[in-house]
Amino acid sequence: MMAGYTKSVERLQAEFAKLPGIGARSAERLAFHVLKAPREEALALAEAIADVKANVRPCSVCFNLAEDRLCEICSDAGRDAGCICVVEQPKDLLSLEVTGVFSGVYHVLMGQIAPLDGVEPEDLTIDQLLARVRKGGVREVILATNPTVAGDVTALHIVERLKDLPSVKVTRLARGLPVGGSIEYSNQSILTDALNERREL
Amino acid sequence: MMAGYTKSVERLQAEFAKLPGIGARSAERLAFHVLKAPREEALALAEAIADVKANVRPCSVCFNLAEDRLCEICSDAGRDAGCICVVEQPKDLLSLEVTGVFSGVYHVLMGQIAPLDGVEPEDLTIDQLLARVRKGGVREVILATNPTVAGDVTALHIVERLKDLPSVKVTRLARGLPVGGSIEYSNQSILTDALNERREL
Repeated sequence: MMAGYTKSVERLQAEFAKLPGIGARSAERLAFHVLKAPREEALALAEAIADVKANVRPCSVCFNLAEDRLCEICSDAGRDAGCICVVEQPKDLLSLEVTGVFSGVYHVLMGQIAPLDGVEPEDLTIDQLLARVRKGGVREVILATNPTVAGDVTALHIVERLKDLPSVKVTRLARGLPVGGSIEYSNQSILTDALNERREL
Repeated sequence: MMAGYTKSVERLQAEFAKLPGIGARSAERLAFHVLKAPREEALALAEAIADVKANVRPCSVCFNLAEDRLCEICSDAGRDAGCICVVEQPKDLLSLEVTGVFSGVYHVLMGQIAPLDGVEPEDLTIDQLLARVRKGGVREVILATNPTVAGDVTALHIVERLKDLPSVKVTRLARGLPVGGSIEYSNQSILTDALNERREL
């Protein structure tokens, strides 16, 4: 008889192997780490997973990650609710927050329009964005979708939908050369953007 | 105010980051995977961790991983209990099992003697190995510790301890050139072993 690890260990290995970027060898290493780790330490990971599934939900206003009805940003009276920055996912929101440049609020679309992947506009939180704008008090909507085909399609769709609403300024993030990049190694699309959006000095 | 992820998400990220080989970026990716994953899938990982901590224990005879009193190998009547292969850890046991060459039983030391890391002989399962041999019925003990200084120290210590017991044949795994290796790129220690343990054809 060829022996393997025990059933519980093999199941844990299989579960770890389902995680992104975790191959069979890493899954084995992680399972053994759990085996050797003090009971409390291993269970802390199990509890953290269960807690996230139990506690984290979308903010009822902007769909950012939240543990209460409102996320930390929407519940912050210091943020300018008149300026909404529209992002695809919570990770994008955090990247923008790290700059410390933006003091408005956000709206998380929860994806991008991608018909080939079965993601239609109604699968995103676009209706909820329009409802926020319709309520009034919004001066500007900044479209901060990714600078990709799908991101642009999503942004254009939102621009069209916003046209029927009371006038609100709609902007999108600037495109051009990335700081630290070089003209020599920039591709055609970057250089086209850089030329078309050139600024007067 | 600079927003981060929610408390639960940050805690999960921190727990993932404690795992071996998981850096901050991977921990973030894993935490987001758990966030997005279906509830059952995420909880399956949490349960698998808890199950391993609850169900897996050392075999009462050989200290291999087991879910019952005896591991799969010790409870297999087809294995030759007269030949004990001594390994450092359960992983080594499994590597040897994969060869399909060995039909005896094992004894897992649960480490190697390493005074600098605070591991003394009494921290390993050497006393239990001696007790097994003392019981009788054991013809051969194969020392399959790693071919390293600490592995050799551990093996020599066991050889000394076995000397006081009723005669039993003590062997160790062969050393020499690894199949597929080359003489040109083998280091001095490998070549020394290969010369010293040369076999007559």
